[in-house]
Amino acid sequence: MAKIFDYPKTKELCEKIFMSFGYEKPEAEQTTDILLKSDLYGIESHGLQRMIRYFNDLKAGGIDVHAKPEILRETPVSATIDAHRMMGQLAGHYGMKLAIEKAKKSGIGFVTIKNSNHYGIAGYYAKMAIDEDLFAISMTNSAKNMVPTYGKRPMLGTNPIAIGMPADPTPFLFDAATTVVARGKIEVKDKKGLPLPHGWAVDGNGNECTDPAVVLKAILDGTGGIMPLGGTDETSGYKGYGYGILVELFTGVFAGGNTSNLNRSGIPIETSHAFLVVDYGIFDDKAAIRKRFSTFLQQLRDTPKADGHDRIYIHGEKEFESEDDKKKNGFPVQDRTIDELIMICNDRGIDYGPYFGYLL
Amino acid sequence: MAKIFDYPKTKELCEKIFMSFGYEKPEAEQTTDILLKSDLYGIESHGLQRMIRYFNDLKAGGIDVHAKPEILRETPVSATIDAHRMMGQLAGHYGMKLAIEKAKKSGIGFVTIKNSNHYGIAGYYAKMAIDEDLFAISMTNSAKNMVPTYGKRPMLGTNPIAIGMPADPTPFLFDAATTVVARGKIEVKDKKGLPLPHGWAVDGNGNECTDPAVVLKAILDGTGGIMPLGGTDETSGYKGYGYGILVELFTGVFAGGNTSNLNRSGIPIETSHAFLVVDYGIFDDKAAIRKRFSTFLQQLRDTPKADGHDRIYIHGEKEFESEDDKKKNGFPVQDRTIDELIMICNDRGIDYGPYFGYLL
Repeated sequence: MAKIFDYPKTKELCEKIFMSFGYEKPEAEQTTDILLKSDLYGIESHGLQRMIRYFNDLKAGGIDVHAKPEILRETPVSATIDAHRMMGQLAGHYGMKLAIEKAKKSGIGFVTIKNSNHYGIAGYYAKMAIDEDLFAISMTNSAKNMVPTYGKRPMLGTNPIAIGMPADPTPFLFDAATTVVARGKIEVKDKKGLPLPHGWAVDGNGNECTDPAVVLKAILDGTGGIMPLGGTDETSGYKGYGYGILVELFTGVFAGGNTSNLNRSGIPIETSHAFLVVDYGIFDDKAAIRKRFSTFLQQLRDTPKADGHDRIYIHGEKEFESEDDKKKNGFPVQDRTIDELIMICNDRGIDYGPYFGYLL
Repeated sequence: MAKIFDYPKTKELCEKIFMSFGYEKPEAEQTTDILLKSDLYGIESHGLQRMIRYFNDLKAGGIDVHAKPEILRETPVSATIDAHRMMGQLAGHYGMKLAIEKAKKSGIGFVTIKNSNHYGIAGYYAKMAIDEDLFAISMTNSAKNMVPTYGKRPMLGTNPIAIGMPADPTPFLFDAATTVVARGKIEVKDKKGLPLPHGWAVDGNGNECTDPAVVLKAILDGTGGIMPLGGTDETSGYKGYGYGILVELFTGVFAGGNTSNLNRSGIPIETSHAFLVVDYGIFDDKAAIRKRFSTFLQQLRDTPKADGHDRIYIHGEKEFESEDDKKKNGFPVQDRTIDELIMICNDRGIDYGPYFGYLL
C-alpha cells in the first residue's frame, strides 16, 4: 500500500536528512532535487524508495560527504574527473555543468567521471542541458546484471542512456536502460506473482527464465540476469549488448574507473558516468533546427494509431505530465519506504512529525 | 543459388561500371571498396546485390556523378555539408575524413550531411576512424519502414548506428539497425516460406504480424512495417523508437535534410548521415584506455557460456573473420544478382567475360 506525500514538505525532509550527514544546504537541495524528480516523473524505483540505499552508503562510508571532484585531464572540449566517492548526484551535477560550459564555449563538451556513486535518473542531467537549449547525452554504468548474448553470467550494468533535445511544445527526453527492462520491473512482477514475459531474463544456465524469483536470486548470486535490449538472439539482443558496451566504454573505460562486471550487488559500488553536450547551433540556425525537430515530432504524434491505442508518445511527455500533476497533488510512497524513512529519521534525530503530518 | 566470385576481379568489374558513368578511378575505387566490404563482412544485403540500385539511381539522375560536397557551416569541432545528391559512399567518405581531421586537431569532430544517397554499411565509416586509432559513431537515415510504438504507419528509417573503438586483438565494431531487424531479414524469411518470429513486424492495422509477405507488401504500400529494436511495448520497443529518433535528429534534422518519413520506398531518396569522432586521448593516456577496453572485452569473451553455446562474440569479430576468409576464398553472389550484373554490363558496354571467368 502507498500513501500520498506532499512534494514541498518531502523536499524539506530529504534536505534535513542529507544535512544531518554534514552536507551544506545547497548540496542537500541539489541531491534532493534529483532524488525527488524521479518520483515526480513517476519513476518510483529511483526516487524516495532509494533513500535507504543512500543512507546506508553514507553510514558505511561508501559515499564520502567531504569529497571534492578533481579534474585529472582537461581540454576545451573535454574533462576527466575523479569524484573520490562523492555523492553521485553531486558528481553528476558537477560533471554535466562542466560539459554544458564547454559546449557553450567550444560547441561540444564531453565529460567522463570515475569513482562516483549512484547518480539517480540519467535523464535529470540531460534535462539540465535542455534547459540551456543544448543537446545532451547522459549515461552511467552500475552494478552488473546484464548477461551478454550467449553468456550466462551478468557482465554489464543496467547502463542507462538518456538523450535530451529541446523541442516545442515539450522537449525530447529519452531515458532507458540498455537491458530489456530495469531490475525494478522484475521485482514488481515478483510481488504480483506474475511470470516474466518472454525475452526478459536468463537463469544461471543461460536459458530463458520466466520465474521472477529465480531471476532475482540469480542476480544476487551473480549467476543469471537480465537480457540486453532486444532480448534473445532471434530479436537481436546483441544490439542492446553493444549499447551496454558503449556505456562501459564512455564511463569506466574512458575515465579509468571500474567496469560494471567488477562491481557487486548490494555494496557501495564504484560508478562511472559520462556526459556529452552539443550546442546544436554549430550545425545551423538554432531556431531552424528546433522547428524542424518539433515538426518531425508532431508528425509522429499525428500518424494513425494502432488498433486499441489513441495516442503516440514522444519520449518525456509522460514524465512531464506526471511532474505537473504530482507537484500539485502529491506523489505515492509505499508503506515499506515510509517505515524506512521513520527508521532513518530516528537514527538522524529528525522529528518527522511536521513532514509526515502533510501526508494527504 | 549462388556462385563464388573472386574478390580482386569483382573489384575491377565494379570500378569499370562506376567509371562508365564518368567517375574518376579513385572515386570508383572508393565506392567499390565500401560496396564490396559488405560482401567481405558477410553482409550480402548491402553488397554487390545492391549494384542494381546504384545503377538505376545513376541512370535516373538520383545520384549526380558530378556533384561536389559543399560545406554550409563549420567550426573547429563540426561541419554541416550539402552533398548535392552525390554518390552516398563518396559523401560518407568525405564526411568521415573531415570528422577525423577535426578530431585529430580539436579532440572531437562532428559532421552532418544532407542531400546524399545510400552510403552502404554504416560500419565502414566507423572502421575508417578505428584505423586512425580514434573512436567513432556513424549513422544514416533511410527510407521509412520503422513503425513507432502504438502506431501503424512507417515513420522512421531502419536508421543504423555504427560504433567503432580500437582494441586488441580486434577492434570493437558495432553496426546495427535501430529496428529489430533490417528489411533484408524479412525478405529471407519470405523466400524460405518461414513465418516471422514474434516481435518483428506489424501489419497495416498496427497489429503484430508474422506473415513476411503481408509485411513486405505493407512496407511497399507505406502501411505497416518493422518494429523498433525491443519489439512490442512489453519488451520495451519504445527504446528502439527513441534511438530511431536520435538518428533522425543527428542526420536530417541537424543537417537540414529530409527525415525518413518524407522518403518513399523504391525511388532515389534524400539521405542524411552523421559522423561523430573522438580522439579518446583527450581523456587519458591512449595506451592505458586501449588496454582497459581490451581487458574488458577479453573478460566478456572468457565469461561462462550459455547451454548450447561455446563462444561469446565481441561486435565485429564475425565480420573480420569473414573478411579474411572471403578475400582469399571468394564470396557468394546470388544468381539473380549475376543476371543483374550481366544486364548492367550490357548496358554499359562492358565485356564481363574476363571477370566472370574468375568465378570459382
